[in-house]
Amino acid sequence: MASTGGNAVQEGPPEPQPALDAYLRAARSRHLAELCELIAIPSVGALPEHGPDMARAAAWIAARLDAIGCPEAAVCPTAGHPAVIGRWPAPPGAPTVLVYAHYDVQPADPLELWTTPPFAPEVRGGRLYGRGASDDKGNLLLPLRAIEALTSVEGGLPVGVTFLCEGEEEIGSPSLPALLSVQRERLRADVALSADGIMWSSELPSLLVGSKGLLALDVQVRCAAGDLHSGLHGGMAPNAAVALAHVLARLVAADGEILVEGFADDARPLSDAERAEVARAPFDARAYAAGIGASALVGEPGYTPLERNWHRPTLDVNGIWGGFQGEGAKTVIPAGAGAKITCRLACGQDPDRVAAAIERHVQASLPPGAEAEVVRQAGGSPAFEIDPGHPVLAAARGALRASYGFDPLLMRMGGTLPIAELLQRELGLDVVLLSWSMPDEGLHAPDEFVRLENLDRGARVYADLLHRLAAAGAASHPEAQG
Amino acid sequence: MASTGGNAVQEGPPEPQPALDAYLRAARSRHLAELCELIAIPSVGALPEHGPDMARAAAWIAARLDAIGCPEAAVCPTAGHPAVIGRWPAPPGAPTVLVYAHYDVQPADPLELWTTPPFAPEVRGGRLYGRGASDDKGNLLLPLRAIEALTSVEGGLPVGVTFLCEGEEEIGSPSLPALLSVQRERLRADVALSADGIMWSSELPSLLVGSKGLLALDVQVRCAAGDLHSGLHGGMAPNAAVALAHVLARLVAADGEILVEGFADDARPLSDAERAEVARAPFDARAYAAGIGASALVGEPGYTPLERNWHRPTLDVNGIWGGFQGEGAKTVIPAGAGAKITCRLACGQDPDRVAAAIERHVQASLPPGAEAEVVRQAGGSPAFEIDPGHPVLAAARGALRASYGFDPLLMRMGGTLPIAELLQRELGLDVVLLSWSMPDEGLHAPDEFVRLENLDRGARVYADLLHRLAAAGAASHPEAQG
Repeated sequence: MASTGGNAVQEGPPEPQPALDAYLRAARSRHLAELCELIAIPSVGALPEHGPDMARAAAWIAARLDAIGCPEAAVCPTAGHPAVIGRWPAPPGAPTVLVYAHYDVQPADPLELWTTPPFAPEVRGGRLYGRGASDDKGNLLLPLRAIEALTSVEGGLPVGVTFLCEGEEEIGSPSLPALLSVQRERLRADVALSADGIMWSSELPSLLVGSKGLLALDVQVRCAAGDLHSGLHGGMAPNAAVALAHVLARLVAADGEILVEGFADDARPLSDAERAEVARAPFDARAYAAGIGASALVGEPGYTPLERNWHRPTLDVNGIWGGFQGEGAKTVIPAGAGAKITCRLACGQDPDRVAAAIERHVQASLPPGAEAEVVRQAGGSPAFEIDPGHPVLAAARGALRASYGFDPLLMRMGGTLPIAELLQRELGLDVVLLSWSMPDEGLHAPDEFVRLENLDRGARVYADLLHRLAAAGAASHPEAQG
Repeated sequence: MASTGGNAVQEGPPEPQPALDAYLRAARSRHLAELCELIAIPSVGALPEHGPDMARAAAWIAARLDAIGCPEAAVCPTAGHPAVIGRWPAPPGAPTVLVYAHYDVQPADPLELWTTPPFAPEVRGGRLYGRGASDDKGNLLLPLRAIEALTSVEGGLPVGVTFLCEGEEEIGSPSLPALLSVQRERLRADVALSADGIMWSSELPSLLVGSKGLLALDVQVRCAAGDLHSGLHGGMAPNAAVALAHVLARLVAADGEILVEGFADDARPLSDAERAEVARAPFDARAYAAGIGASALVGEPGYTPLERNWHRPTLDVNGIWGGFQGEGAKTVIPAGAGAKITCRLACGQDPDRVAAAIERHVQASLPPGAEAEVVRQAGGSPAFEIDPGHPVLAAARGALRASYGFDPLLMRMGGTLPIAELLQRELGLDVVLLSWSMPDEGLHAPDEFVRLENLDRGARVYADLLHRLAAAGAASHPEAQG
């Protein structure tokens, strides 16, 4: 994917909009107070005792939608925590953009590591501290600020907007698939944005344009009918823990190269432009390794660490078990041992084919006396990437370039983006993630914060982006990804 | 160790002792009834609710010692279950033999798999069924039957006997070291026998002449400061489960060969006579493998499976762990992973040196990005073997040869014999195990039984053996093993 180019219609400089800027400046302290109100609602979806808070937060958002003139705002019950949907119909001939966000937050513990209480938001040095400040309450309000400014200043929106805010993102969005399916008609849109995401840094704005697929399987090795006494059977009986070690050592080399025959055959090769885009990201491998406490990085030879993380398929052993794990010694020869494996898949890879390749490799790698069962876990998914010519991507790049004065980094992530997969599958929409969450803002950790200047910029960029999407128009209706 | 030869004094045919035989024949049904009485006491040392039964069993044995004229029989309290000690002083110039046994038994569950209740002993087809029939109540009464016959028929014993019967063998003899230490003077003897042991089969009598040492250590591999998200860190961060797999695969080859540099350097090589002795044991590797449910046997090349089990040092991974072991999938890169390792050591090996060799090998085998800590578990011990010229061994071989008409198999075991190590360490005594427990008698399992004809023979062999020990005399006082 090229780091430059795109659709000229959406790439121009922003139209000067002094009235919009003035509105947002004037509303700044009220917007901050609103965000503090929302953060003060401890909407921790994982903890049952916060059930009433989830309802309060959903009601707060629906009220906020009403307040900014949303003609159709509603709290939507689900099997879990409620979602909120707000719709602004599209002006004639204009496209509709779905904007995704979530109001639930991670648990706040350990509480003692917070400088100020997590649900008592406080501004210190240009940062607003509180659970959810960055993930995702600060960001979820950005499109609403932009909508409020546009409708106030311009008397309406240049595009249709469907705002979808769920309350279960931090617990895996269990109710979202059913909600999308039931509300498909109501959620119909032309393009999609997510206000939940990550940005490389304040200095280097970014858009997330791809994420990896996922494949999970269990390997169970068996060597005997039951555990055996290492005295009675030592030197004779095969040992399942040793056998598993050989199987795993033959899956992944000591230097991290994945040895599975045919593993990466279908992975789309990196283009020179993609390598150049990875190289734009200021990534200090030494500092990264020190940060995670590792003495060396490992992985597929021929690629930089970040190229591997963004683009190349990976295989990790997530857990191993077998035999005796207690205190002291137990002289047992384990009859069975197992491992959990997940792969992050690159674009072009089919989870079924990769799973078959791993199973073949495991079976071919078995030491004498060992048998193996490879069981695929449910829920694998292919990688996601957005078409480089997709109008929502072009518009978002244009809006960021206009704001920052240079092209945003087209980031990828080594992880899986369930929302991208879900919006694609249920609604046929490709999504661009546009958020001002920074990796250093304590997401899921104590002292979470958001940078206030980024929120100011973000609201302005969202407003500009809605104009650009209108300019791109319904003519450039996106094609589904291959 | 030669399979033939020995001390001519103790090797002659048994003196015909028709009176002794007649006595034992006459007492047979009473002796069986006594054994049934003892089995009916559910002396399950592992279960606290059987505390009173332990006391009853100890009292029963002490009473039995009284009944056969033991001049000094006593129940000895310990920190755990009581022991019983009975002493017959040695005639002038004659040696004293310590005879070890245990009255505690394994738990009987699963009860539903017993044909008749475990503590309601029943004779069926020449076999006495019941928990402890073989391990060790049937065998513990053999020396007492012999002593009773000798004192009745001959008016006294040809040697001194110290009978030591503990009640904690099945739970690892936790109180025995202290008991041996405290009672050292009272337990002083010239030679030792154990009525707890194993015999190859009814057709092939055997004596256990060696067991392996033990060494236990934990290997802990660490790759990062904490578990990492496989999406954020995939393709970059080292994986501790993979690193551990490489470490273990480099300790033991896929075919079971131990790869630790210098691992077996100090192991005393097998003599041709020892290989011939192993070959005497009818061991069908194919049937053995089928019996344990293994499709192949593994181990050091150049040795038969039984040679490895009896004589060669072994290394087993007893357990492995790391990362996520629960249901489903968790996309984590484990920061740590560990393994428990035990080695069965051959004669000549020093546990400290082997442990150092393993630690060196582990450190030298670490993949990039991994660190390892090797922690030695307490309680290692060197291998045990009895001197081939030891008088108690020669006497026992002679007694068995006299009874069966051919030389007993000089067995070894791949396991560790704590009692041998303990008697050696605390009392300076080498022990020969002489028991008619057969491996097929359901030891530690449902429907445990003992063959009644073996008990008849065993009592007679014990009586003959005491005579032979007297003939060998105090002159052949054993030397401590090197």
